Amino acid sequence: MKIENACGRLIETNIGNYVFRPFNGTKKYTYTSKVTTLVDALKKCGLKDGYTLSFHHQLRNGDYVVNATLEAVRELGVKDIRLAQTALFDVHKPIVEYIKEGIVTRIEGSLNGVVGDYVSRHPLKAPVILRSHGGRWAAVKSGELHPDIAIIAASAADERGNATGVIGENAFGPISYSQVDAQYADHVIVVTDNIVEYPCIYQEIQERYVDYVAEIDRIGDPKKIMSGTTKITEDPMKLDIARKCVDLMDAVGIIRDGMVFQSGAGGISLAAMKFLGERLEEKDVVARCATGGLTKLIIEIYKAGRVEHLYYSQVFDDYSVKFIQENLGLPADIGHYADPTTKGRTIDGLDTVVLGATEVDTSFNVNVNTHSDGRLLHGIGGHQDTASAASLTIITVPVFRKTNPIVREKVTTISTPGMIVDAIVTNEGIAINPKREDLIKKVKDKIDLIPIEELKDIAYEATGGPKEIKLGDEIIGVTKYFDGTVLDNIYRVVE
Amino acid sequence: MKIENACGRLIETNIGNYVFRPFNGTKKYTYTSKVTTLVDALKKCGLKDGYTLSFHHQLRNGDYVVNATLEAVRELGVKDIRLAQTALFDVHKPIVEYIKEGIVTRIEGSLNGVVGDYVSRHPLKAPVILRSHGGRWAAVKSGELHPDIAIIAASAADERGNATGVIGENAFGPISYSQVDAQYADHVIVVTDNIVEYPCIYQEIQERYVDYVAEIDRIGDPKKIMSGTTKITEDPMKLDIARKCVDLMDAVGIIRDGMVFQSGAGGISLAAMKFLGERLEEKDVVARCATGGLTKLIIEIYKAGRVEHLYYSQVFDDYSVKFIQENLGLPADIGHYADPTTKGRTIDGLDTVVLGATEVDTSFNVNVNTHSDGRLLHGIGGHQDTASAASLTIITVPVFRKTNPIVREKVTTISTPGMIVDAIVTNEGIAINPKREDLIKKVKDKIDLIPIEELKDIAYEATGGPKEIKLGDEIIGVTKYFDGTVLDNIYRVVE
Repeated sequence: MKIENACGRLIETNIGNYVFRPFNGTKKYTYTSKVTTLVDALKKCGLKDGYTLSFHHQLRNGDYVVNATLEAVRELGVKDIRLAQTALFDVHKPIVEYIKEGIVTRIEGSLNGVVGDYVSRHPLKAPVILRSHGGRWAAVKSGELHPDIAIIAASAADERGNATGVIGENAFGPISYSQVDAQYADHVIVVTDNIVEYPCIYQEIQERYVDYVAEIDRIGDPKKIMSGTTKITEDPMKLDIARKCVDLMDAVGIIRDGMVFQSGAGGISLAAMKFLGERLEEKDVVARCATGGLTKLIIEIYKAGRVEHLYYSQVFDDYSVKFIQENLGLPADIGHYADPTTKGRTIDGLDTVVLGATEVDTSFNVNVNTHSDGRLLHGIGGHQDTASAASLTIITVPVFRKTNPIVREKVTTISTPGMIVDAIVTNEGIAINPKREDLIKKVKDKIDLIPIEELKDIAYEATGGPKEIKLGDEIIGVTKYFDGTVLDNIYRVVE
Repeated sequence: MKIENACGRLIETNIGNYVFRPFNGTKKYTYTSKVTTLVDALKKCGLKDGYTLSFHHQLRNGDYVVNATLEAVRELGVKDIRLAQTALFDVHKPIVEYIKEGIVTRIEGSLNGVVGDYVSRHPLKAPVILRSHGGRWAAVKSGELHPDIAIIAASAADERGNATGVIGENAFGPISYSQVDAQYADHVIVVTDNIVEYPCIYQEIQERYVDYVAEIDRIGDPKKIMSGTTKITEDPMKLDIARKCVDLMDAVGIIRDGMVFQSGAGGISLAAMKFLGERLEEKDVVARCATGGLTKLIIEIYKAGRVEHLYYSQVFDDYSVKFIQENLGLPADIGHYADPTTKGRTIDGLDTVVLGATEVDTSFNVNVNTHSDGRLLHGIGGHQDTASAASLTIITVPVFRKTNPIVREKVTTISTPGMIVDAIVTNEGIAINPKREDLIKKVKDKIDLIPIEELKDIAYEATGGPKEIKLGDEIIGVTKYFDGTVLDNIYRVVE
């Protein structure tokens, strides 16, 4: 059938199997500034009871954006919000009040500190769902975790919504957690204290995804945005553990040209990176890539020519922020880094990663989420993701802390399953997962190993074994593996 | 109900409205090299009769990849392929043979030259569908045009599929057309003649989307990859038209600090850019952005400090490739540039664009696809996209070419609807679209205008009017507006 279109042409609407719609007229496209207030932006995005709001955590303990948003939610009289942040910190203590007021009723995302402590004792109306970095990305992509509104903090943005974390007074490094939220959320608000001239010269988030740019006074406190965890430990016990990690790597034979390793922040891991840098120097070896987070330490190893590429997803200190402002290098967003539903992650092929834990058990399961008293105080981060990818996944722990056995029969909560954990390095020796016969063979006659059960025995002897803890029947949280399945349930703390 | 998971934990599978799957075990993830031959890659991607294969055209008339792929398809005995390239050139003449053999039976994408000529006389089993850059991106995103296999030419790629057009002997500029194919195709093959060490330091296409990396001898002929259209015309008539464009911009008042303009290649447009650069200098004006394609000319304007940002999607000459290798600046992929289904395109807010045409008509409709004899010889490119966005969309044409009236009552094919075309600048004067009363008012007493009908009369007088052409009943192609509707049908040429 022929139909006359808006240009006056007779258009055939059916050709073979094809059905065509005739041109119906058009207009000139233009743009208007998207800059407004946070309250107005939320209103225009249709904020209502029951909505899911997502956030990234790259402003860490210096973040003002989550609190400011919830203040705006309260101002708008909206309740029953589900938070879908990548992580919360102590700075987000006001959330406890919002929970009490019924403004926040559900949380899916990492809880570090006070909010986790509160939720451990006061269950929300649905359990907190804890996912790894890669697991969260996949969940947003699949729709399992659908943000109605993504709220994306930026240290600079232009009026059309191109946004970055690379420049500005509160720069925190390339925005790397929010691309998936920008793409899949129904509405997207960039929040910034620094509107720059169009076009913003870095744009990890592009205008094509952004509905509004909310201008606020300050997105955060730069002193607290930068992590406190980039100081190398001075504790001789921890330094000893860190040194053992590098000895283990060496014994396994992975300290060789082209090695790829994950560089993290946090006491022992950072010390291990320092010693690894020294070992690279001693052996005159050049590593191919360091993935993960940037710190002054790892940049110094790079500058010394001991690692060719920094393939980073986070930036942990001021030194590193200044460094990437001069040379952006190879940032990898979290999807590139760890989305398990793709055809390749940057972490695939890692030779080694050094990770911490609150507890480990004789099945090599690792707990990073709860303390031994049952309180949910930490997120999973990239723990599972990197553990699943590294040829040598090392967990570092002291066998006990004060009167609490860290190596134990059963961890309080499973965050990373033992089947992908290769070695536990402690102050009392190194245990290798018995299923890694290949590793055990490689290190034979090079370093001493100790069975994990003996480490547990040492811990139990020194401490009298795990304290009994009183937990309620209510499940306050679940830890998920990055494939979406449940590793463990977290129960209410009742005393 | 509680179920024991693969870590031995009892997991509650139903909590409130949530249903949870228990952890089922996992393995270590790793990677293997994706490098193989083109034939093997196609086979492993399950190539079969009826498949849609997509390509980008950034190797232009120097491209070897489309032909090499179809040779592999023939070798595999597969038929009935739909091509979903962004554009074909004369170098793709072998496709005529593949059509005759039934290997290629449908084409959706731009046809420049010989293949278009052939198809004009020999209809395929479905009409060729012509879309603008932005329209094609949107069609792939929506599933209207679904590639079974995306084949992405790269001048460098690593074994895991991170790929670029920025470096290597056959560098052609950042890959900017294929991100949407990479994301939405069922299978993705990167084709390169330059496997670089992991990680490839530019990666417009990331490993997460790539199934295979097919290594071939040469992806193209560097001499022909670079466009021949970056030479400024020496034809006095065309130079006169180009100068008039800049006079018109000036009269309208858009040559001012912060202006944003589209810089294209092609004779008159390039000359207009040269004169615009001079005018910026004379008036001591600094433009904000030049969007579109990079040429030596536009980079020189940038280096002279007359435009602050090059917000580019293509790279047209060697000079520009070298320039971006030293300073990548602000590349914009085609989705960012022109996807009409997003919340903002880089072209929105363009002050002006200067575009060519094969014909224009008295309703300001523009033909860029067919010649006046009906032959389909060109693609739409970014014509519609930029026309829809620019405050001042200028079409430049001579009123007639040889004995053919270019300004006419009705264009042979509508590529861009007159309702978004603002001015026709010709050797015989400037016509402004009567619906743009604002523009007419602005230029009053500054420049002379001529009604479009008079331009047509001049053309008809000099040429005797349009030749009658003999077209068949069969529709060999349709031009679509970027919203997916049909602007026009293209009929078979019968003599």
